[in-house]
Amino acid sequence: MEPKKRTEIATLGQFGLIDRLTKDFPQQHSSTLLGVGDDAAVILPQADETMLCTTDSFFEGVDFDLTYFPLKHLGYKVVTAGVSDILAMNARPSQITVSLGVSAKIPVEALQDLYEGISFACKEQEIDLVGGDTRASMTGLVITVTVLGHAPKERITYRSGARLHDLICITGNLGAAYMGLQLLEREKRVLSDVKNPEPQFKGYEYLLEKYLKPRPRTDIIEALAEEKIQPTSMIDLSDGLASDLMQICKSSKCGARIYLDRIPIAQQTTALADEMHTDPVIAALNGGEDYELLFTVPLAMQEQVMRLGLVDVIGHITAESTGAYLVTPDGQDIKLKAQGFPEEA
Amino acid sequence: MEPKKRTEIATLGQFGLIDRLTKDFPQQHSSTLLGVGDDAAVILPQADETMLCTTDSFFEGVDFDLTYFPLKHLGYKVVTAGVSDILAMNARPSQITVSLGVSAKIPVEALQDLYEGISFACKEQEIDLVGGDTRASMTGLVITVTVLGHAPKERITYRSGARLHDLICITGNLGAAYMGLQLLEREKRVLSDVKNPEPQFKGYEYLLEKYLKPRPRTDIIEALAEEKIQPTSMIDLSDGLASDLMQICKSSKCGARIYLDRIPIAQQTTALADEMHTDPVIAALNGGEDYELLFTVPLAMQEQVMRLGLVDVIGHITAESTGAYLVTPDGQDIKLKAQGFPEEA
Repeated sequence: MEPKKRTEIATLGQFGLIDRLTKDFPQQHSSTLLGVGDDAAVILPQADETMLCTTDSFFEGVDFDLTYFPLKHLGYKVVTAGVSDILAMNARPSQITVSLGVSAKIPVEALQDLYEGISFACKEQEIDLVGGDTRASMTGLVITVTVLGHAPKERITYRSGARLHDLICITGNLGAAYMGLQLLEREKRVLSDVKNPEPQFKGYEYLLEKYLKPRPRTDIIEALAEEKIQPTSMIDLSDGLASDLMQICKSSKCGARIYLDRIPIAQQTTALADEMHTDPVIAALNGGEDYELLFTVPLAMQEQVMRLGLVDVIGHITAESTGAYLVTPDGQDIKLKAQGFPEEA
Repeated sequence: MEPKKRTEIATLGQFGLIDRLTKDFPQQHSSTLLGVGDDAAVILPQADETMLCTTDSFFEGVDFDLTYFPLKHLGYKVVTAGVSDILAMNARPSQITVSLGVSAKIPVEALQDLYEGISFACKEQEIDLVGGDTRASMTGLVITVTVLGHAPKERITYRSGARLHDLICITGNLGAAYMGLQLLEREKRVLSDVKNPEPQFKGYEYLLEKYLKPRPRTDIIEALAEEKIQPTSMIDLSDGLASDLMQICKSSKCGARIYLDRIPIAQQTTALADEMHTDPVIAALNGGEDYELLFTVPLAMQEQVMRLGLVDVIGHITAESTGAYLVTPDGQDIKLKAQGFPEEA
């Protein structure tokens, strides 16, 4: 994992380190008046627009395992996670801050890899790195990103706007990131005693990419705007379909029925689940980290939404009293449960 | 440190925990359209104003020691640190996000203490808690705060605006927080083997308060606005006078001369330094965490600044080529060095 050249962080000092890491970040967004280099960043809001702000943290050993997570990809992924929260409000990202806690065991070159991934993602999303700090951590790597975004007030889509009979829409496919993680964990276990491990990933490259380098669905937000589709509610799929759909139900005070045979699952996800004797639907419902979007639209918009060619309709919104259910092909109703989330009455 | 009642975090779950911690946060700032509870917070910028954004992280064992740092005070202090960065731009804070990494050993009641301190500081500063997340950490407590603020564009004060002959001004006094930390560390060392330790803090209460519960200098920003004084440059004193003044010099491409006998040092700081056989000036120059403000104004504003009654003029800006010096009462020039900061040529 570690590159050959090894510069100790201590040789640069805190400020030298930040200078080194942030030198390759061009200013791209017109609203950024001042990025890094002062006590705070300065942003000129777009006329008549609201600003959005979201924060996410990632802890080594909990959220990622550096034995198989390349730092470049990790940098890319933390940007995706933050950007995805802004997209889920039907808004556009514009700035990001990145705070690091690093242990002395991490060399400068490794942090440069991390920042290369962050830089790549920032360029792709046309957002500016405008701040952050780098501190010593007693243990592993800790990354906190804050992403700022903007949108006209009337465009913002909350979790709370789903209404009775609205269609429940999903982008992409679900469970792939979770199965990618299972694959990496399996190879780590199997090869833990092997000297020059050669993990077997053939045929599952898509799953690895979905877990290690997920792309935020900026294309969806653009397509919705182009087609003048205003979702009634939206959330990004970071905790798994069940948990995230229940968040919509909780905020919108509604129930939901989704149909198992309509949940989009990639062929590689099913293949690996079969190989590992697990159920791909469980991966889709509880896996998380797909960074796809879950949103609702009025029933009358069905045709318009289908025309996008990017979305699957997997169910509809029901009355709050009926709860949230998964309907199996043979007509069984299974009550949805969110892991780590107190079930609604 | 730990309260008697002990609720494990696992019994609440991530979402239940966030609900519990954030229930006592009223929405106070008119620009907050939506706080916690969705993918991102929504903020309506003040008309014709810029927005500011700053991030700070605090790691247990590096930035604070929970054996003597009460969690309520820690909550207060992390807000101060973030708010202070916004004030240092001559701007006002309006929103904050708080991300936590917590190990399972920390009970819910301890986090409630932390949030009580955060809440108290937010009410005092009239800012809104609008987001954050709470994640498992493999080790100690990690706190990251992001503070948003606002100011008219023409009011913003950068580090880069200091000009030749400008006066260098300091609020409050320096080195007190550092000596407070030395006192706490000494008592911890002395009492490490004692069963019911009774640390001796008498006569040094001010030093403890400056270290454990520093107040952001919002009053200064208000006084400057009232007196229509626009500083040419400003920074908050978080890394120590030497390091922070050299940041101004670096950004403004200038030198500086400050006079040792004009550096404001509190009586308790001098007394404890004497007792511990250290130099109070070293505490003032390199101590940090005072969260006072360092700013420059044109020479012509001397009288106006002195009228505030809140500020000491400790020196003036010189040409870049002359460097940054501390002048002793007997006329010696000592070149300033910033700890952990690569010295300028």
